[in-house]
Amino acid sequence: MAGYEAWLAYRPIADADRRAKIVAWTEAISADEDDLCIRTAAAELAQGLTRLTGRTPSCRTQAPGSASSTAAGSAASISAAASASAGRSVRLGTFEGSADVRESFSEAERASVAEEGFRIRADERSLVIAGTTGKGVLYGAFHFLRLVQTGTPLDGLDVLHNPANGLRMIDQWDNIDGSIERGYAGRSIFYRDNEITEDMTRIRDYARLLASVGLNAIAINNVNVHRLETMFLTEAYLPRIARIADEFRAFGVRLFLSVNFAAPFEIGGLPTADPLDEGVQAWWRATARAVYDGIPDFGGFLVKADSEFRPGPFTYGRDHADGANMLADALAPHGGIVIWRCFVYNCKQDWRDRKTDRARAAYDHFVPLDGRFRDNVMLQIKNGPMDFQVREPVSPLFGAIPDTNVAIEFQVTQEYTGQQRHLCYLVPQWKEALDFDTHARGEGSEVKRIADGSLFDRKLGGFAAVSNIGDDANWTGHPLAQANLYGYGRLAWDTDLSSEAIAEEWVKLTYGSDERVVETIRGMLMDSWPIYESYNAPLGIGWMVKPNHHFGPDVDGYEYSMWGTYHFADNRGIGVDRTVRSGTGYAGQYRQPNAGRFESLADTPDELVLFFHHVPYAHVLHSGKTVIQHIYDAHFEGVEGAEALLAKWDSLAGLIGEADHAAARSRLQEQIRHAEEWRDVINTYFLRKSGITDLHNRTIY
Amino acid sequence: MAGYEAWLAYRPIADADRRAKIVAWTEAISADEDDLCIRTAAAELAQGLTRLTGRTPSCRTQAPGSASSTAAGSAASISAAASASAGRSVRLGTFEGSADVRESFSEAERASVAEEGFRIRADERSLVIAGTTGKGVLYGAFHFLRLVQTGTPLDGLDVLHNPANGLRMIDQWDNIDGSIERGYAGRSIFYRDNEITEDMTRIRDYARLLASVGLNAIAINNVNVHRLETMFLTEAYLPRIARIADEFRAFGVRLFLSVNFAAPFEIGGLPTADPLDEGVQAWWRATARAVYDGIPDFGGFLVKADSEFRPGPFTYGRDHADGANMLADALAPHGGIVIWRCFVYNCKQDWRDRKTDRARAAYDHFVPLDGRFRDNVMLQIKNGPMDFQVREPVSPLFGAIPDTNVAIEFQVTQEYTGQQRHLCYLVPQWKEALDFDTHARGEGSEVKRIADGSLFDRKLGGFAAVSNIGDDANWTGHPLAQANLYGYGRLAWDTDLSSEAIAEEWVKLTYGSDERVVETIRGMLMDSWPIYESYNAPLGIGWMVKPNHHFGPDVDGYEYSMWGTYHFADNRGIGVDRTVRSGTGYAGQYRQPNAGRFESLADTPDELVLFFHHVPYAHVLHSGKTVIQHIYDAHFEGVEGAEALLAKWDSLAGLIGEADHAAARSRLQEQIRHAEEWRDVINTYFLRKSGITDLHNRTIY
Repeated sequence: MAGYEAWLAYRPIADADRRAKIVAWTEAISADEDDLCIRTAAAELAQGLTRLTGRTPSCRTQAPGSASSTAAGSAASISAAASASAGRSVRLGTFEGSADVRESFSEAERASVAEEGFRIRADERSLVIAGTTGKGVLYGAFHFLRLVQTGTPLDGLDVLHNPANGLRMIDQWDNIDGSIERGYAGRSIFYRDNEITEDMTRIRDYARLLASVGLNAIAINNVNVHRLETMFLTEAYLPRIARIADEFRAFGVRLFLSVNFAAPFEIGGLPTADPLDEGVQAWWRATARAVYDGIPDFGGFLVKADSEFRPGPFTYGRDHADGANMLADALAPHGGIVIWRCFVYNCKQDWRDRKTDRARAAYDHFVPLDGRFRDNVMLQIKNGPMDFQVREPVSPLFGAIPDTNVAIEFQVTQEYTGQQRHLCYLVPQWKEALDFDTHARGEGSEVKRIADGSLFDRKLGGFAAVSNIGDDANWTGHPLAQANLYGYGRLAWDTDLSSEAIAEEWVKLTYGSDERVVETIRGMLMDSWPIYESYNAPLGIGWMVKPNHHFGPDVDGYEYSMWGTYHFADNRGIGVDRTVRSGTGYAGQYRQPNAGRFESLADTPDELVLFFHHVPYAHVLHSGKTVIQHIYDAHFEGVEGAEALLAKWDSLAGLIGEADHAAARSRLQEQIRHAEEWRDVINTYFLRKSGITDLHNRTIY
Repeated sequence: MAGYEAWLAYRPIADADRRAKIVAWTEAISADEDDLCIRTAAAELAQGLTRLTGRTPSCRTQAPGSASSTAAGSAASISAAASASAGRSVRLGTFEGSADVRESFSEAERASVAEEGFRIRADERSLVIAGTTGKGVLYGAFHFLRLVQTGTPLDGLDVLHNPANGLRMIDQWDNIDGSIERGYAGRSIFYRDNEITEDMTRIRDYARLLASVGLNAIAINNVNVHRLETMFLTEAYLPRIARIADEFRAFGVRLFLSVNFAAPFEIGGLPTADPLDEGVQAWWRATARAVYDGIPDFGGFLVKADSEFRPGPFTYGRDHADGANMLADALAPHGGIVIWRCFVYNCKQDWRDRKTDRARAAYDHFVPLDGRFRDNVMLQIKNGPMDFQVREPVSPLFGAIPDTNVAIEFQVTQEYTGQQRHLCYLVPQWKEALDFDTHARGEGSEVKRIADGSLFDRKLGGFAAVSNIGDDANWTGHPLAQANLYGYGRLAWDTDLSSEAIAEEWVKLTYGSDERVVETIRGMLMDSWPIYESYNAPLGIGWMVKPNHHFGPDVDGYEYSMWGTYHFADNRGIGVDRTVRSGTGYAGQYRQPNAGRFESLADTPDELVLFFHHVPYAHVLHSGKTVIQHIYDAHFEGVEGAEALLAKWDSLAGLIGEADHAAARSRLQEQIRHAEEWRDVINTYFLRKSGITDLHNRTIY
């Protein structure tokens, strides 16, 4: 069940034959190296196998700081005394640290394993989980447990997995008061009452969840860095942050901090935060040193600057490159990086101004700066040009800055996609962005190849995403929302995994392998994004949400607003003309043939037509429907879809733990009521505005 | 200037002749009675006259608890030693307590003075301020100072003033955390950091401001009573509340508490709060006793029950009368009253339901209960049926419950009328409601005669209003917003005062009597409500505000909402059909001829046409304009009006204190910008929706 243990519950394997086979392969666990991550891996294996098979493997690991020996395992959760086993053992290790492991592979095989990759091979006498580094071994251990649970035969097993992305990061938008910006699963597990927590239990368990899906970095505070969080860079806070870093380190996760660009001014006692000021530079250098004194593997700084009223280099007449490079220079001696967010747009925008287009902003700001950023700077670009809407085109900034390191940013927390009260499995949405071909270097220039750095041969690349967890008992509020965190990690590791495969894995690990359960829940997950989209904003227009909290329908909520995003609906039509010919010119930010496709009303896919074009309500879509009839139909279908989700879930009664079933059920019921609300508000709005009645004469209020 | 001292700054009288005349009349102040309010009155007179004339009158008053004597004045602010004066003196006293005062009036004259009224008469040897009670004397003293400042000749002075209303109450919507619900002038002066304040300075000064305009009651906590405020009825809080009551008592103001109907359950340890339960009744009786032990003149309880999720008798299958009477019985032995709010409507209302009409709710709930309430219960009815909109018809509940005590509730705090950032002098709005003829007992049955209890010969009657003050240095944020608090008090005392007269008084007391200043500011105040209305929601439709905080334009903000209020605008027309013939039937809640007038589109006044009727945009108003052209014109005119306000204020530069001028100026500038925002949002919305262009081709976005 999708409870506190999430996908790491290690449900006992029911099939006795299969259980016996696994026991035969795993009578002992041995690891010869003094490596934190390898000890974690051994402990996880011991724990997992014990729970899966009912039998505890014997275990031999290295105590911290000890030379190679056969002493009792040091990991606390390993209860069995170490002993040489009669059966076959699982051997963990790196090629460099373990001769035994090294000799199990050819030189070419060893060379095929990337820094954080792993290779698992079953030979006559043992099963080897090998990596270039301890982190790789840890990911291999988790993967091995996944294979065991998803029914993969162990005989003849030989798999190699390298992560697609170097950076696989999760961002906590947690505030020191314990609140979480855009959090929908309780309060922060990191902070409480304006203090950093000293209780490491949930932090450790969260680190384990992250590592289990291959995530290797975390920023532990909100990108909107307020007064107390700005102080995190000082001695008052660093010891506790280092304590948290210790927990993450054991799971191979590097800790980052979001920083306030104005910190030298706000807490440093300097008269300026100008990035070209020598005093400011010295302050950041000293600050970086202090951070690395306590956290030797500190990841670096995450920065939101000159965006939504956050301070930044603009105050001093400098640009983003000046700002980012100054921080990068402070971090470089220690191996740290700067992650600089591209979610930047002109705050002074006025809804009366129909020329300015927020969708253009990231491209307009950053393309001129391409090539000016240091090697240890990454620009973090949201998947779409707006802000995590249910449907957006891909940001045209991907592919437009070949001489800059980039990371793609997703939102695991469901800010605009149902806030973990609605079911919305987001992996298919992310896949769509990743598979988008930018044509930046001709055909085959998919976004995923830009994000991972390979297309432009960049040193750094990767994924970042806003976390969806809080201190709710099950981490994510909606039990099925765990699938988004799981899927994000798996996708960051392997962008070629299909949405269905990830969903299936997650269901098996979480709810077991009963075929009806797997098929039903996988189907629910796969249906959920289209269902959510259909009762939300139509045809790519986005933003039909209540302002500020972004839950529930409000068609004009952002229509007459400084932060506005606009649909421009009037009594004749709707949509934003973003063409070069007659609109904001945004379509021209793409490379060909995409630019031409979006420029043309005929060629723009239906799901994005209102993002790129202003059309009459009677405009006929590729689907054969008019825009207005599409709006009506989609919203009726959306409610039916929500009802179908509940019916499917109800068909699993008895096959799912009762409490878990009830918890998801109440959310699915709420989703139906709320989908009805969406349907009725949006349809009524457009009926009133257009005066065009529904072809099927359904009730619109 | 409209600073901390507000209208009690007592600016020195510049004219030497006039000053000399006043000094001649006021060489001494004498008061023979041991009465708290009379001591306050003498102190105020001494202070006021000293500042007005530069000369301190000699003063003879009674020390607390002493027998009649000629000892030195006890009021702290009186510095001069008491002495028999050679000139004429001001004598203060009640007919019963002072033989001297008694003998100055005939029996008929004495009988003409109501309990809290006063008579001021200048005869050969002295000027007498006489009352039936000490409170009356206090009001007389403030009035005398007002007469002095507004230039009334003292020779031959002989005035009688009795308050129109028994209850003249102000309600603080202050919370113990220091916030103020719908407060726009800083934090609470009563609470701070979840404690009742021990600093009495501002509380005392507030009591003085209230008394100066004749207000005699205050509820010191928000009608939405939360957990800690529920505890106000316990020993943990009562001593501090009693301390506050002491301050108000000295100024003749009785203290009330808002109570939580569920208190017996929430803090009393009882299993129920059922008003018919004997244990509950006993709990309230004991609680009332405890309150009166500390506050012998405690006013009573203010209750918001079964409204907007507040608990109430409905939970137990009881009605408002059951609930109110139970509390009334607990208070009756001590002379307390229950003020029961009629702001009650069905929370479960759904915007999809076009039959239910929130405007109907108060009438529908309370008319069936007429005659069932105890004599010490008052129903507090908002001026309009909705919620303090810029324009509403009068609540039809006035005149519909002749066998029930009622009070009319206004909102001095400018929740929907500009939040003290816009200038909006509300006295004309209140006057319009008060002068509305309900025809409940034939022609001449104005609302003011129902509120004061006279029309139906009710024992209790009066005014209540939500306060607009906070801990801002000038109390009200916008300097000119002080006029609303002043005007509310003056109108509660005398409903026949004109808006202009009140405005003029306030300007003279606050800014002095320079003719240009008086004329200009009075004009600004009188223009302000129509200006605000013109750029807000048109023709009585109301509610075109941003949800929750109610500041700024949002046409559909409450259109698709459970709490909705609705304009039903579509591409053809706008308005709510509240007729009996084809609408919600609300118009039928009025008596004839009002019911017929509102039922008829032709007879409904323009300013309320959309409140009562759904009409096409092309409908021609009495003004000769179409509805749509009216909307456009009014919104353009509104901005011009706001600009005119600033121009008028600017014309006073040099005649108003610099800081004060600057403070109001920046708000008037903000008002223009904000009026433009209103103009553009509302006009754009209706242009888009109707497709009908502006006759004058002005810019609409």
